[in-house]
Amino acid sequence: MRLATRPVALWFSAATTASAFLPTSLGLVHPSIGVVSRSRFGALKQKTSLRMSSSSTNSMKVALCQFHVTSDKEANHSTAKSYLEKAKAGGADLVVLPEIWNSPYATAAFPEYAETLPQVGDKESESSSTKLLLDAAKEHNVWIVGGSIPEVVKDDNGENKIYNTCLVLNPEGEVVAKHRKVHLFDIDVPGGITFFESETLSPGEGMTHFSTPFGEIGLGICYDIRFPEYAMLLRQKYNCVALIYPGAFNLTTGPAHWELLQRGRAVDNQCYVMMASPARTEDPKDENAKYPHYTAWGHSTVVSPWGEVISTIDEKEGIVFADLDLAKVEEMRAGIPIENQKREDMYSLKEL
Amino acid sequence: MRLATRPVALWFSAATTASAFLPTSLGLVHPSIGVVSRSRFGALKQKTSLRMSSSSTNSMKVALCQFHVTSDKEANHSTAKSYLEKAKAGGADLVVLPEIWNSPYATAAFPEYAETLPQVGDKESESSSTKLLLDAAKEHNVWIVGGSIPEVVKDDNGENKIYNTCLVLNPEGEVVAKHRKVHLFDIDVPGGITFFESETLSPGEGMTHFSTPFGEIGLGICYDIRFPEYAMLLRQKYNCVALIYPGAFNLTTGPAHWELLQRGRAVDNQCYVMMASPARTEDPKDENAKYPHYTAWGHSTVVSPWGEVISTIDEKEGIVFADLDLAKVEEMRAGIPIENQKREDMYSLKEL
Repeated sequence: MRLATRPVALWFSAATTASAFLPTSLGLVHPSIGVVSRSRFGALKQKTSLRMSSSSTNSMKVALCQFHVTSDKEANHSTAKSYLEKAKAGGADLVVLPEIWNSPYATAAFPEYAETLPQVGDKESESSSTKLLLDAAKEHNVWIVGGSIPEVVKDDNGENKIYNTCLVLNPEGEVVAKHRKVHLFDIDVPGGITFFESETLSPGEGMTHFSTPFGEIGLGICYDIRFPEYAMLLRQKYNCVALIYPGAFNLTTGPAHWELLQRGRAVDNQCYVMMASPARTEDPKDENAKYPHYTAWGHSTVVSPWGEVISTIDEKEGIVFADLDLAKVEEMRAGIPIENQKREDMYSLKEL
Repeated sequence: MRLATRPVALWFSAATTASAFLPTSLGLVHPSIGVVSRSRFGALKQKTSLRMSSSSTNSMKVALCQFHVTSDKEANHSTAKSYLEKAKAGGADLVVLPEIWNSPYATAAFPEYAETLPQVGDKESESSSTKLLLDAAKEHNVWIVGGSIPEVVKDDNGENKIYNTCLVLNPEGEVVAKHRKVHLFDIDVPGGITFFESETLSPGEGMTHFSTPFGEIGLGICYDIRFPEYAMLLRQKYNCVALIYPGAFNLTTGPAHWELLQRGRAVDNQCYVMMASPARTEDPKDENAKYPHYTAWGHSTVVSPWGEVISTIDEKEGIVFADLDLAKVEEMRAGIPIENQKREDMYSLKEL
């Protein structure tokens, strides 16, 4: 709750003033995190065990990349590559890309843009989108939460299944986590948005988290954030100190729930929460377009364990930087110790 | 999400303009609920079954009473009586009082102010605070969620136990629900608030909900709202369409979390959420005061299933009125059907 000078640098000019427009008096923006003296992740490059340990670091600079996604996969690759470079130049230890960044966000497009993705432990891939991420992780010595891309998998019957999949790479360029969106975005709000991911996508099967020197980090994709059970188990069972959801909300649910869901998950689980979105591209109204246009809300955001928006942006392109301070997680959990006050005699939440 | 003319009348002048100060452009206030043509609760007075049925009503006017609580129990009774009258005069079908309204909010005071409370099904009580509520329910033909008062119970060993207890009365003046706060408020935020209810209170043992012609309503007290499991079970297992938490947040957690927790519970459970607080009384700095002073946040609030603050107030005395529209619950649940999209193969939340 301390107010301090703003330590958060937003890389792009479009983003530089975005959060300044939000009224601090309403408690929406509290730039209260401490300045990171220097990234300590470089020194950990040779560390083979990534488990949190006594040598864990207390701070991490994250960068959420918000850029335009087009129907040209090569152009999307080029954009992503450039944003990863800029994130590194801004001092990021961990970079997050948006949901579905190599393909239009349209169910009909997913099969055409889908690639065969590597497994956890792999350091190489035939997938062009993944190769870009593996190379960037090594070249820039950063963690990459690779947004999501459509993944194609041949099932036991020889049929193709498509997933909405996020890969996480460590600075050695190794795949350390793979999340397939478990809650598919099937909604129909009258007068608002109608979208059924299940038209072409299959749901994933597991909870995903990965270990970093900063602590355990939980991972979901977009609509997964609407399900409190998922986030609560990542905190309760795996002690996650941050939750990352690449996402692409729309103009119906975005203004109403994008920030609220992140702030709610943050306070309930007393951890950092962040979502990276594509930049908004206005509907080109091209009647000959191959796929329907999706208008993303944008507003990539980082929220503190206390529920404060500590860095955000509007709907335009840019990078949202924030310094995460693990001490803030520990302070909140010590001050309001809800995890020890759960009524385990009255209710039970379990992973099956 | 429709913007409409404001149908919400705030009874007191202090409250009349309170929510007008909040910026609608930020999505914090959307007065989108419909105007209730007329209360239909009166016609149901003789109905013996209170279960939701085909004759259930779609609308209900609630009134949250926010008043000053003092160390003078008789004065508190007089204030509560007057607010119940004013709520009825404003057309309320259901009136909510704040947490601990007959006693100072101080752990040391609870034993002195505690009363022996009636059981569910009772229509009479020796407790003076309860008698006031029973009489008012019948006289005004309204539902009363009686905030909370300290309850004393002699246990099997002849020892007194004190609970923080909320009684719910129907318009016939019968106790239909009794909630003993299940999560005690024990927190210690450095530089902020330190409070340990467990110094003198015992925790309750069960989830509480009650049936009205509007639908099933869930009930918790204050700190109970920090526990998502409790609210989620009230929605998932008992299909509650509204959650009511009499509460008394403070100046550390109030500005940060009071509204956020309500909006979060509302969107996650797709139901109305409301909290009634005492009005704020500034610390009189009386060194001879018998009990420590507690400075309440105030801001009694009603939130829609879409997460909008539909009626609120500042820290001063007043009544917050709001018309609840059951159709809004059904619309939200149909449009974003998260309840049917839970991954029951991955996680399980159960009442024990």
